Amino acid sequence: VRSSRNNKVKKSSTMIKAAMIEEEVALDEAPLTLLRPGGEGDANEMRAKFEKMVRQAQNDICKAVEELDGGKFHEDAWERPGGGGGISRVLQGGKVFEKAGINVSVVYGQMPPEAYRAATGGQGAGTETIPFFAAGISSVMHPINPMAPTVHFNYRYFETDSPRDDPGAPRAWWFGGGTDLTPSYIFHEDVAHFHGTLKGACDKHDPEYYPRFKQWADDYFMIKHRGERRGVGGVFFDDMNDRPKEELLAFATDMAQAVVPAYIPLVDKHKDDSFTQEEKEWQQMRRGRYVEFNLVYDRGTTFGLKTGGRIESILMSLPLTARWQYDMHPKEGSREADALDAFMNPRTWLA
Amino acid sequence: VRSSRNNKVKKSSTMIKAAMIEEEVALDEAPLTLLRPGGEGDANEMRAKFEKMVRQAQNDICKAVEELDGGKFHEDAWERPGGGGGISRVLQGGKVFEKAGINVSVVYGQMPPEAYRAATGGQGAGTETIPFFAAGISSVMHPINPMAPTVHFNYRYFETDSPRDDPGAPRAWWFGGGTDLTPSYIFHEDVAHFHGTLKGACDKHDPEYYPRFKQWADDYFMIKHRGERRGVGGVFFDDMNDRPKEELLAFATDMAQAVVPAYIPLVDKHKDDSFTQEEKEWQQMRRGRYVEFNLVYDRGTTFGLKTGGRIESILMSLPLTARWQYDMHPKEGSREADALDAFMNPRTWLA
Repeated sequence: VRSSRNNKVKKSSTMIKAAMIEEEVALDEAPLTLLRPGGEGDANEMRAKFEKMVRQAQNDICKAVEELDGGKFHEDAWERPGGGGGISRVLQGGKVFEKAGINVSVVYGQMPPEAYRAATGGQGAGTETIPFFAAGISSVMHPINPMAPTVHFNYRYFETDSPRDDPGAPRAWWFGGGTDLTPSYIFHEDVAHFHGTLKGACDKHDPEYYPRFKQWADDYFMIKHRGERRGVGGVFFDDMNDRPKEELLAFATDMAQAVVPAYIPLVDKHKDDSFTQEEKEWQQMRRGRYVEFNLVYDRGTTFGLKTGGRIESILMSLPLTARWQYDMHPKEGSREADALDAFMNPRTWLA
Repeated sequence: VRSSRNNKVKKSSTMIKAAMIEEEVALDEAPLTLLRPGGEGDANEMRAKFEKMVRQAQNDICKAVEELDGGKFHEDAWERPGGGGGISRVLQGGKVFEKAGINVSVVYGQMPPEAYRAATGGQGAGTETIPFFAAGISSVMHPINPMAPTVHFNYRYFETDSPRDDPGAPRAWWFGGGTDLTPSYIFHEDVAHFHGTLKGACDKHDPEYYPRFKQWADDYFMIKHRGERRGVGGVFFDDMNDRPKEELLAFATDMAQAVVPAYIPLVDKHKDDSFTQEEKEWQQMRRGRYVEFNLVYDRGTTFGLKTGGRIESILMSLPLTARWQYDMHPKEGSREADALDAFMNPRTWLA
């Protein structure tokens, strides 16, 4: 990992940031911790443990991607004067990856009620802003070869503080996350390997996790206006707080550690496959769908855009290149039609 | 204009369409009128006049674009069993235009309250759906050459019916629209010509229109999370109902007719300019910004996605190709930096 200074402190989003999250300041290198100094008992302890976990995962996964690609991630680190910050690592224009990004961030902010609803997917929060803490890792990796799939994963820990007008009210906290696969072409055995590896990590904690979270991913990664999913899913969960925090941390840790064995072998297998211009264009169109999902529906993205986080880190998930071809329908019986069918009608990948 | 049958009646969006707008059925050719048969007095008369106006504008503008490009628009026409329909014309992969689309549509629908708020940009409408009628023309044209600008225009007439629980309440109606320019590189005299032509059309109706609607465009075409506009604006107005309908129709007609003289000469001038790979990539990145604006903020697009209109027509505005390069900042003093400055700090183009 090369570290380099991002000299330009962006001023462009000041307008909406002012009310939500402070402007970030670039750092020469990643600090030991992104947390605010000073303890706050148990809640604070989980904050520190979760930061440690996601930073370890960032290191491990970046290392595996660099070994596969041969290129190096570029690192940008930043902090906010009042606390919090992030570490973005991007590998762009590599030999295997068109664009791969892995973010770690710690945010102390004020959540507008619509962002609270976007984050929780639910109602509530009235009209008052809610102080919150969020720590997480999120990543999207887009390979060059259209036979190699895109992966996304995100694991996060969230706390809201008490509302100002009710300081004695209990805080809310929850874990969320998921890992999902977006191929342009379907290789059944690859998708089965991906889902099987995630299931293995889930099963260590609860045999009901995989079926429940597989369904949740099929529901969540839906491009509603198209009636199709962005890919073949994986697992997704949110608002988890029905077990002790330590158990949920262990689950999130195992899920983050499953990314490399679930995904890297698939790219390694297909990175040198031959492909046609038409197949590249189909991949580009699926990347356009990815953009539609992320900008219109994805909770993390819409939350980030509304609260004024670091835009280049939030939108790092968007592909280097994408395509919107008017009214393109795959030919019946084609491999593109098979992929579209898998996106419209979720399959059972594991026997 | 070639007419061809769109054989595939899309089923993909049925889920959300059911509640809002009926599924469309492809037609072999555009019908004489897209309106429901049967009169409804004065309101209906404006519906017919407005449809006639936008269909004439579609013909005129398509003709001018075909003459410039040498290619032909492909036409898709459709109707909905309960009334309404549309005519989409797209020229993709032309000699001059990467993608140019001009839609005419007539919609009878049920507006969910959040769509009503997205459409009007305001509050209100509670939790009940609102029956509505909308007719309009909308267009985006993306040239190949990065020195030639993209244009967008949209002119629309809107009516809401009385809520079911208050049949005696007056209907709301309004006109809206605008024409705006999105260059990748700034040629001052080009932008001045564009704004000047729009001002000329405005001034025929009210000398206060241009300054007011120029400001409105600068405010509206804002990518809030970037703190930059998508381009150099033009005019934008909405919710206009403070004059007799005939006067507002005449104004919308003149604005639609100003598109060709405002825009076509600029593309004609630059269509054969030489350019570098870096300049093409800058254009592609600005197209990425265009996608961000349209999917996150544009009223027409977000309204269309929520009400379940014909997706390929709604998203025809998206460019054939776009690019998201991580944390790219133009070099100080470069032409790219000048363009970005114009997007961040709106200029006065007319002396």
